[in-house]
Amino acid sequence: MRKVQKHDRISVITNILTNNPNKIFTLTHFCNIFDCAKSTISEDLDVVKDIFAQYDLGNIETISGAAGGVYYNPLMTKEQIREFTNELCEMINHSERIIPGGYIYTNDLLYSPTISKNIGRALASLFKDVEVDYIITVETKGIPIALMTAMILNKPMVVVRNQSKLTDGTVIHMNYITGSNHRIKTMCLSTKAIKKGSKVLFIDDFMKAGGTAKGIIDLMQEFEAEMVGIGVLMATKNPEKKVVEDFKTLLWLDTVDENNKVVDIYNVE
Amino acid sequence: MRKVQKHDRISVITNILTNNPNKIFTLTHFCNIFDCAKSTISEDLDVVKDIFAQYDLGNIETISGAAGGVYYNPLMTKEQIREFTNELCEMINHSERIIPGGYIYTNDLLYSPTISKNIGRALASLFKDVEVDYIITVETKGIPIALMTAMILNKPMVVVRNQSKLTDGTVIHMNYITGSNHRIKTMCLSTKAIKKGSKVLFIDDFMKAGGTAKGIIDLMQEFEAEMVGIGVLMATKNPEKKVVEDFKTLLWLDTVDENNKVVDIYNVE
Repeated sequence: MRKVQKHDRISVITNILTNNPNKIFTLTHFCNIFDCAKSTISEDLDVVKDIFAQYDLGNIETISGAAGGVYYNPLMTKEQIREFTNELCEMINHSERIIPGGYIYTNDLLYSPTISKNIGRALASLFKDVEVDYIITVETKGIPIALMTAMILNKPMVVVRNQSKLTDGTVIHMNYITGSNHRIKTMCLSTKAIKKGSKVLFIDDFMKAGGTAKGIIDLMQEFEAEMVGIGVLMATKNPEKKVVEDFKTLLWLDTVDENNKVVDIYNVE
Repeated sequence: MRKVQKHDRISVITNILTNNPNKIFTLTHFCNIFDCAKSTISEDLDVVKDIFAQYDLGNIETISGAAGGVYYNPLMTKEQIREFTNELCEMINHSERIIPGGYIYTNDLLYSPTISKNIGRALASLFKDVEVDYIITVETKGIPIALMTAMILNKPMVVVRNQSKLTDGTVIHMNYITGSNHRIKTMCLSTKAIKKGSKVLFIDDFMKAGGTAKGIIDLMQEFEAEMVGIGVLMATKNPEKKVVEDFKTLLWLDTVDENNKVVDIYNVE
């Protein structure tokens, strides 16, 4: 077997960090792979860190001390988010996406792993300073972007269901009122899903009046958990007043003009 | 700005390929990033390819010719799949996972981005020689592993629903019979979801008699699409005879002994 070269270490370290966003690796982890000294790995990490910074690939963060290590935070810059959400607007603004009733067909975008991963990366970037234990969402369409956000933040995802299934075991079952048309709907979540005292970030594909987000806030009280953020792909301009106070959205949907086949959607500056 | 070094190219190329499994990049793509000659990138790719092979990180494949390029296929080796599914068995085989009725609580595993990504990688590896246009699944619990399989294979995912929603637009709605207890259930899929003549791979978390998989096969006929593979995380030993012929599973579930609190689960050799 050939001698381990610096290129080898740079490439393997890059692969491992890229594949495991926000997971902390000790220097020893890499020392064991290459059978080399910590000082060598430390130098390599400095090189990788500089390269990632220079090419806007996200941040390599080092934690010093005995419990120290290194992790990769694939943050998007504001410019990268703007560029990506511009592309999303272009993809969404097509007349054939308009569904009778003023809705928009977005399944293909939400279910594309490439697009949902970038949405997750953008949403994770919006909440980079928030401490979170779980990413929570409601079935079904929000699951891919919630999972991708969870993957980027390296946190477990929790899915609230509209009806409980046998395999959920014991569940907490709550009725809530939708924000826009005041219908009664149901939320169910396994009692095993969230530990007491946790902080949760709610991620969903769409927000109109915010009734679902409000429902999750109420449901979290039953788990003695706290909602620390709400992030959605798309929020409607109307109603302007939502039933929740703070939320972040990547896109604003103004009007869907069924007659003239125009979707008025724009990204957040 | 400092001069571009070989380390820079190796690290950036590794990051881009790792972040975009099975996406083909032209050499020109990388030439533009570094403002260098194709021959330089070609040499770099050979280096990365050798490193990935040596450290079992998956395959770097090059396509020669005018339409040529390079892509990363993060295949797991048989040994890696065995090791990972062994870990899964250990995680699942806990008495507190047993739900009355002989079911097992696995939501936390399925909804963990790290675990579902590895499941997706293992499932994608089982179907590495199959040509696929879409990954298809049925809501809800199968979505994360289907999305991760789709991410690894770089294909869109399609989610069949139990009832249609406004935002699905026009749907095809089909009743089918569950394989184990012969109940009538419903499958709905937007007519926009799949192009005619496509090949689909069905991914789900659990298979008992295979009624859902059979339902998808029938549903695909309405889309003039062909099911080319069925992959599940876990299949039950009983009934031994499933209603579908060919499927692949990572785990076999033999018995769930509610009295003695033992789960008999094992991986495929």
